[in-house]
Amino acid sequence: MAQIDETHDPGRRSWVASADGHPDFPVQNLPLGIFTPPDDSGPRAGVAIGDSILDLEALADTGLLSGETARAAQAAAGAALNGLFALGAGPRRALRARLSELLTDGSGAADQLRPLLHEAAPCTLHLPARVGDYTDFYVGIHHATNVGRVFRPDNPLLPNYKYVPIGYHGRTSSLVPSGTALHRPHGQRKAPDEAAPSFGPCRNLDFELELGIWIGPGNALGSPIPVAEAGEHIAGFCLLNDWSARDIQAWEYQPLGPFLAKNFGSTLSPWVITPEALAPFRTAQPPRPASDPAPLPYLADADDQQTGALALDLEVYLTTPLLRESGHAPVRLSQSSTRHMYWTAAQLVAHQTSNGCNLRPGDFLGSGTISAPEPTGLGSLLEMTQGGRAPMRLVTGEERRYLEDGDEVILRAHARRDGFVPIGFGECCGMVLAAR
Amino acid sequence: MAQIDETHDPGRRSWVASADGHPDFPVQNLPLGIFTPPDDSGPRAGVAIGDSILDLEALADTGLLSGETARAAQAAAGAALNGLFALGAGPRRALRARLSELLTDGSGAADQLRPLLHEAAPCTLHLPARVGDYTDFYVGIHHATNVGRVFRPDNPLLPNYKYVPIGYHGRTSSLVPSGTALHRPHGQRKAPDEAAPSFGPCRNLDFELELGIWIGPGNALGSPIPVAEAGEHIAGFCLLNDWSARDIQAWEYQPLGPFLAKNFGSTLSPWVITPEALAPFRTAQPPRPASDPAPLPYLADADDQQTGALALDLEVYLTTPLLRESGHAPVRLSQSSTRHMYWTAAQLVAHQTSNGCNLRPGDFLGSGTISAPEPTGLGSLLEMTQGGRAPMRLVTGEERRYLEDGDEVILRAHARRDGFVPIGFGECCGMVLAAR
Repeated sequence: MAQIDETHDPGRRSWVASADGHPDFPVQNLPLGIFTPPDDSGPRAGVAIGDSILDLEALADTGLLSGETARAAQAAAGAALNGLFALGAGPRRALRARLSELLTDGSGAADQLRPLLHEAAPCTLHLPARVGDYTDFYVGIHHATNVGRVFRPDNPLLPNYKYVPIGYHGRTSSLVPSGTALHRPHGQRKAPDEAAPSFGPCRNLDFELELGIWIGPGNALGSPIPVAEAGEHIAGFCLLNDWSARDIQAWEYQPLGPFLAKNFGSTLSPWVITPEALAPFRTAQPPRPASDPAPLPYLADADDQQTGALALDLEVYLTTPLLRESGHAPVRLSQSSTRHMYWTAAQLVAHQTSNGCNLRPGDFLGSGTISAPEPTGLGSLLEMTQGGRAPMRLVTGEERRYLEDGDEVILRAHARRDGFVPIGFGECCGMVLAAR
Repeated sequence: MAQIDETHDPGRRSWVASADGHPDFPVQNLPLGIFTPPDDSGPRAGVAIGDSILDLEALADTGLLSGETARAAQAAAGAALNGLFALGAGPRRALRARLSELLTDGSGAADQLRPLLHEAAPCTLHLPARVGDYTDFYVGIHHATNVGRVFRPDNPLLPNYKYVPIGYHGRTSSLVPSGTALHRPHGQRKAPDEAAPSFGPCRNLDFELELGIWIGPGNALGSPIPVAEAGEHIAGFCLLNDWSARDIQAWEYQPLGPFLAKNFGSTLSPWVITPEALAPFRTAQPPRPASDPAPLPYLADADDQQTGALALDLEVYLTTPLLRESGHAPVRLSQSSTRHMYWTAAQLVAHQTSNGCNLRPGDFLGSGTISAPEPTGLGSLLEMTQGGRAPMRLVTGEERRYLEDGDEVILRAHARRDGFVPIGFGECCGMVLAAR
């Protein structure tokens, strides 16, 4: 489990001026990603610091790294972080400690490193790793309850929900980095009052607010990862917008689950927020109602119960063509928190591998939609508009049941705790384009 | 669509003596795969011919290939066929034609090629490609009916079944080649008479008889593949055993579909049977009952309706420790046919991409379990033993509800048609080991 150390010292300031007070990337964060500079010199690993990106490949050539930190930077060479993820927590932690030293004011390395900084805004950010497999879980208990209530008002959660971290396999080919616009998908949909389905553009396009989890070393087929060791296999976190075509989903999903309703595109925020950066923001699992069953032994670990949950503030923003034309900032639709996850990231890893299924470096897990219990904290339009029956009215006067063409959804996450410098995930955004 | 040509001439015999009359790999087949010779000199592409494998990489160095055929062989260099799949049908067809010439008796190349042949038995066969994404469909209508009957005796098929080629995402990390033994998985299961679930070894371990489909060039995100063009994106076929933990499945699968019940391992036969090899065995889609809806336009193509189905004989064999000890050959459990697929491979490709989802070279599709309408043609023990309620008795006197430790399941497929040399897929086999 990552510890709080000097890299979290709120007194540390960076010689990169934009880092101090930066809402996402102060020197206490140091997230990893893959970027291409505007000169198009090819994708490579980098570290976000303020409004800049430090070229990690170029750093490895300076002689400022050695031993484990050099090994970590070398593993990150190329256009994906899979190699670094495979090394596990030790080298990643060492690299963080060294990056923190080098980027802190007074390190003496500023003159040498300044040429390795790229202004972030004109850079292209990519997916940080090649994803071998992607699992989407369903651990937002308020979301599961809200969705279940539509079908079973008296008994919204299925009997397995509080025993099984419910999840299903997602599609990796259509995972895209933040900023990628997606066309409204076509598909089969059948309204209850229609005699037969028809094929056409999705009518009920939605977003889903999720936490993403990057997998580190992983396990061999047939060798489960115990929950107490699961933390060692988590390489980092990001945001995930699991775009959902609700009308396609309703018609296709029985009996084998969602498919084309989801795999036309899923958007990831590009920066990998490490477990080390999030160490101060770990928290105990919220107490469960006394009537809830205890987790089965393979999911139960005392340390995980005490520190396995994350306290991250989540937000959803929306812009529309009319909002943009009228000069409005994006409007906030929702405020939620990762504290509303019924299972921890470690429990997801333990469950996923409990049958011997193998995780590989760069595999990806989604949490499922994280809604708060309050109506101001819902993680999807399905919940906010009650399946489209209660449209929301925006400040422009326009209404929304579901997403319209030209709408852009922006997810944000921040970690805050008294005595620590807040850090953020950067944006996870995507625009809806008209169906082709 | 692949055409019948001189490579299918039943008069063609090979100078590789074991090829003539070989049940799977006569010179009319020429399937592609990845193998490692017993000298452990590393995995490489090969072609099965009789009891031998021709080293395709070594062939590329002989000067016997040129132009398109050389390009195809070079694309197959390395330990995976993804590069060859990406080239599409043209180079693959050219390579087949040249291989057929070279391996036919009287070609004059025998002396030069004989040193490039490896005895197949001691070679290790691998998965033929790196699988980016794997979709498992559910197009065996008799299987879907049999399974549905357990839950809904009066209305076994859900309303979407005859409109939507139902499918869901599978796990790629745990795909294994034929011959890989798998440990019985652990998992949560709850019998109807148990108050709460428990975690332990699967009690109801099953197999599933499926056709596998390898994807060729594929499509860009947002650009569907029309059904009329789908054939160009199919690189070949194999057999798939979709091992299934029925007790885990029953407890976990709602509302998002099967997950840990499936992803502990899925077994593929290693040889890629090309669309060219199967050209003589294409057939019209079986006529649908007049009460069935017509396929929606995006799934309808006249050519596909006339020649898009495959007539392959499928078989399931079982051995048990007692059968082996008593010197019995594997016993045949089932005889089915790919004619019982409700949707064609082209329809699966068109459906999968209809929302813009992108397929990549080496992606993999499973058909879903293919049962025949007769009780002698069922594709899973769930169906054969009616969910374990009607155990089957083997020749040794032992009974089977589900698979026991030490049992081995063998799937076979053969294509037969008057006037043509029959070809086969080779075996898809796997043994069940005790839970760890």
